[in-house]
Amino acid sequence: MTDKKININVGSGGRQMHEFISEVILKKLGNQILNIMDDSAVVDIKGSKKIAMTSDSYVVSPVFFDGGDIGRLCVCGTVNDLATSGAKAKYLSLSFIIEEGASLIDLEKIVNSIAATAKEAGVLIVTGDTKVVEKGKADVLYINTTGVGLLDDKTKLSTHNAQDNDIVMVTGNIGDHEVALIKARKLVDFDINVKSDVAPLNKKVEELLKITDDVHCIKDPTRGGLAGALNEIASNSICDIKIFEDSVPFSDGVKSVCNLIGFDPMYLASEGKYVIICNPKSELAVKKIFGDKASVIGVIKKSQKGAVLVETSFGGVRKLSVLDSIQLPRIC
Amino acid sequence: MTDKKININVGSGGRQMHEFISEVILKKLGNQILNIMDDSAVVDIKGSKKIAMTSDSYVVSPVFFDGGDIGRLCVCGTVNDLATSGAKAKYLSLSFIIEEGASLIDLEKIVNSIAATAKEAGVLIVTGDTKVVEKGKADVLYINTTGVGLLDDKTKLSTHNAQDNDIVMVTGNIGDHEVALIKARKLVDFDINVKSDVAPLNKKVEELLKITDDVHCIKDPTRGGLAGALNEIASNSICDIKIFEDSVPFSDGVKSVCNLIGFDPMYLASEGKYVIICNPKSELAVKKIFGDKASVIGVIKKSQKGAVLVETSFGGVRKLSVLDSIQLPRIC
Repeated sequence: MTDKKININVGSGGRQMHEFISEVILKKLGNQILNIMDDSAVVDIKGSKKIAMTSDSYVVSPVFFDGGDIGRLCVCGTVNDLATSGAKAKYLSLSFIIEEGASLIDLEKIVNSIAATAKEAGVLIVTGDTKVVEKGKADVLYINTTGVGLLDDKTKLSTHNAQDNDIVMVTGNIGDHEVALIKARKLVDFDINVKSDVAPLNKKVEELLKITDDVHCIKDPTRGGLAGALNEIASNSICDIKIFEDSVPFSDGVKSVCNLIGFDPMYLASEGKYVIICNPKSELAVKKIFGDKASVIGVIKKSQKGAVLVETSFGGVRKLSVLDSIQLPRIC
Repeated sequence: MTDKKININVGSGGRQMHEFISEVILKKLGNQILNIMDDSAVVDIKGSKKIAMTSDSYVVSPVFFDGGDIGRLCVCGTVNDLATSGAKAKYLSLSFIIEEGASLIDLEKIVNSIAATAKEAGVLIVTGDTKVVEKGKADVLYINTTGVGLLDDKTKLSTHNAQDNDIVMVTGNIGDHEVALIKARKLVDFDINVKSDVAPLNKKVEELLKITDDVHCIKDPTRGGLAGALNEIASNSICDIKIFEDSVPFSDGVKSVCNLIGFDPMYLASEGKYVIICNPKSELAVKKIFGDKASVIGVIKKSQKGAVLVETSFGGVRKLSVLDSIQLPRIC
């Protein structure tokens, strides 16, 4: 199969754009709503009084990595953000900024990955946009996905909602996504046995909220890692968060990379894990839904300080701050 | 006032990102919903059963031009697209991809422009995202805006909905936006007295739909120009569109540029004009809302061909096709 390169006319609004959209986008992602192809998609919101909206641009480089690609990432990132509000993820927009000269075969692979992940997450792509910029004005492909989810009246999850004596849980190993990107970018010269954890978690959150009412905050530790997520919760809920260092689960691959090159794994991004702040009586429900790797890593204490404190294995306590700058080349 | 340059850490998820968001974004765009700054925004949809969603990425270069800038453009493009479905534009997401080294003063100007235009259009920015990519991986700034609007049950505007014997109207001079960009990019070496027409039209559409029930399709002739918009309607509604060439209004500046360098103005983008397809009895309503420049430029004839035909001033007829490639360097 010979590859074609995307040329600037694919973004022209003319014949080549229509061909790209019908041959590449609609063939894989088409549905009754998207196929109408008006400038706005009209979608049903089934009597909900509130919706959740979230938006992210994906600028990951390279666009393929062990465990996923930019297509899987953009769908997961969006449905996982919607689920943090307790909303049922439903509709996504998909906007491409393509660098002139990008491989059509690669784009088709990415669109296939978007289709498969959207199916897995149970969401529809309902509207979108395609722009092509000159060579050297992007990095192969940037994708923006914006999602809409439906909310019931009772759910009130928020980073502002952590309660005194709540427990802090994570739903599994932390940092795999960023280490997979370190590997894909060849930033280290030894082999690393780590894949990105990128996965849609929205259906698991829906199940969790059906079996317990005592979850107060769900947040995915993506850019900024666990440290970033916890500091945001501590600051927004005006509480201290105390973490037991030894209880934070990391894969062997993440541990060995961090030991060898001196990263703090608390700052490494995950794309298929949540931090969950809940009343202790929800612990078993979280473990039932997210499995054995879900674990309690800390507690919430009301305080005006908004600090995140880590109790080390030696019994010491250190403050876990937000980083001033990135510790690695950007991964998103 | 000394300028600062955006560095890669503004996209890190760390302290510098939080500072940028609170100092530049929230200070100008903050509202009760956005200020919560959770990963999803929760918004009220007031008993609507349907919503409209639209998404566009803005990659215009340069980011400032006569009559507007990328900030005004992204808000107008989004609310104007929402209004084409008859929806009341309400909530926008705002996602920045910033090139490392971009001027902070320029970004602040653009955010001010977004704030002013959002106020003019009556919409709120409710969620967003900031990414920073390395120098040479973007073109100063790309913005994605995705909008949500509320729909009532009766409105059924669509490019699939043009009816036999409907009239084709435009709401004013066509092509000013693209010519303003030709000027801003210094693609011609003579002076052009044309400003971009970029403007939010959503409130005018709301007024129009209050006073007439006989509008069938509204479309903004942006990328691809009037020719692109009309061909999309002809193809989707399975009809022919006959346009009277002399009746299409162009400003003197657009006419003279097209005469001098041989562009066909039918392909030039506007950002503050609509094509409106309606029953002849809505003509006066359209003129009442959009003013004197609103004019009838053609008619719809049911046909399986889906062709756009232009009757020239000499009585000849030519087919107005979709362009195969762009006639100019890309403007979006």
